[in-house]
Amino acid sequence: MTGVAEVYEPTERTTVNRYKTRANYDHVTIHGIIDSCPVLHVSFNPTSVDDDPFPTILPMIGCTGSYTSPNANETSAVSVYLHGHASSRFMKLPTVHSESDDTTYSNLPGTPVCIAATHMDGVVLALTPFNHSCNYRSAVVHGYASIVTDPAEKLYALRIMTDSLIPSRWDHCRVPPTPAELTATTVLRVEIIGASAKIRAGPPGNDRADLDDPAMRQRVWTGVVPSWVTWGTPVPAEENMVQTVPDYISEFVKGENEKGEGYATEITGKVLTSKK
Amino acid sequence: MTGVAEVYEPTERTTVNRYKTRANYDHVTIHGIIDSCPVLHVSFNPTSVDDDPFPTILPMIGCTGSYTSPNANETSAVSVYLHGHASSRFMKLPTVHSESDDTTYSNLPGTPVCIAATHMDGVVLALTPFNHSCNYRSAVVHGYASIVTDPAEKLYALRIMTDSLIPSRWDHCRVPPTPAELTATTVLRVEIIGASAKIRAGPPGNDRADLDDPAMRQRVWTGVVPSWVTWGTPVPAEENMVQTVPDYISEFVKGENEKGEGYATEITGKVLTSKK
Repeated sequence: MTGVAEVYEPTERTTVNRYKTRANYDHVTIHGIIDSCPVLHVSFNPTSVDDDPFPTILPMIGCTGSYTSPNANETSAVSVYLHGHASSRFMKLPTVHSESDDTTYSNLPGTPVCIAATHMDGVVLALTPFNHSCNYRSAVVHGYASIVTDPAEKLYALRIMTDSLIPSRWDHCRVPPTPAELTATTVLRVEIIGASAKIRAGPPGNDRADLDDPAMRQRVWTGVVPSWVTWGTPVPAEENMVQTVPDYISEFVKGENEKGEGYATEITGKVLTSKK
Repeated sequence: MTGVAEVYEPTERTTVNRYKTRANYDHVTIHGIIDSCPVLHVSFNPTSVDDDPFPTILPMIGCTGSYTSPNANETSAVSVYLHGHASSRFMKLPTVHSESDDTTYSNLPGTPVCIAATHMDGVVLALTPFNHSCNYRSAVVHGYASIVTDPAEKLYALRIMTDSLIPSRWDHCRVPPTPAELTATTVLRVEIIGASAKIRAGPPGNDRADLDDPAMRQRVWTGVVPSWVTWGTPVPAEENMVQTVPDYISEFVKGENEKGEGYATEITGKVLTSKK
């Protein structure tokens, strides 16, 4: 995309130091992991007021977006949108920070947050516990969270977050939100200032000394046990009046299941291919 | 268990403020969520040295344990064990903190961390985006991380973490670890100082005004799309010399799949039961 870097420049904060070959900094990979993860983990330091040294993590729903060019594709998305009830501690934090006497926070362009998205793709069983591992796709993003005040951007963000649960759900709901609903909901835009992904997809690694021990190898099974998320049959609620499950929901279930099992098959394929 | 509280006392840091009815503070629930989660998210503030205001999150493998009484059941576990390569930034942090000139950190009994474990159990589709939700089981723990220096405790922790991937895997591996493997691995014990869980499992909630709009209700499907983790067929690695997949692995796969789908069925049962 014109004018938008397609790779996050690694910084001291984001550089992957262990297993560098698993590291990845490109937009498509990082945004893809975030947007395919049903739940994000968001970390922040609760207040600037007291001296609480503990960060906190909240599991949240969110997705990447780019309001300045809403029709751009995933390579140019530069923010992560989050939302919550207006009265929640985290949603009020950008206001607390901007009004804080502590210039560490009030001088910043937003509340510093870290967002992690992780797909667990299976356990990797090696000969020795030391070499055990997991297959996974993980993205970690740092950015400044601010409250979205522009009503049009807020609507845009609510729409893409709703559709991140099930594509095109927004258009199949009672929309637009009422003024009361909009007042009760705060949307945060997290401007990404750095990000990295780490991916492991393959067979176990073993040490030479262990591979040279056939008696032990005949005793210890090694390989990969793949895992993925399965979506089940949609179950109608009591008040539901729509007779059959709409296509966009059935297609979501089918598509996600094919994607999940498909990726697991791709990985185990790599394990098998390593035999050649 | 004698002498051990079975509930985490809610504090300002851990009290669930939104949807209090979903909150839970008991040990069995919280430890159960942590130990059934294949991946934990761990948050910490990278250094006490510079003024970096960003917390970081790492996806990690870990589990609860209680070395002082290793045969105690889950109700009395009071620590979370984590591990990593000795050279990694996070594993070195307790040493950095204890030797820091910044007394905010050096006076603490360990490095302040937050650990989150989340099961995503499905999406909850209401009439309006505002009432959309997810079914989930989530635990958030705060505690002080210290490096485990007692060799016996370190072995205990490595065993329970290995077995947290697949039960009894440790006894089916090449053990004990070599001195070089033990030197290369750092184990952290996180003493829990506060914890809470939050659970949602049920049908969508809708507002009266929306329920009073039959024309809209005939257009918007509402209900739950359940999700769970599926474990696939174990795939042997190139170097594997064990002819058939051992029972403890097959049983893990079967057991986890029954548990995952079983819980999803239980939840959707609640959605259906709400019809009565």
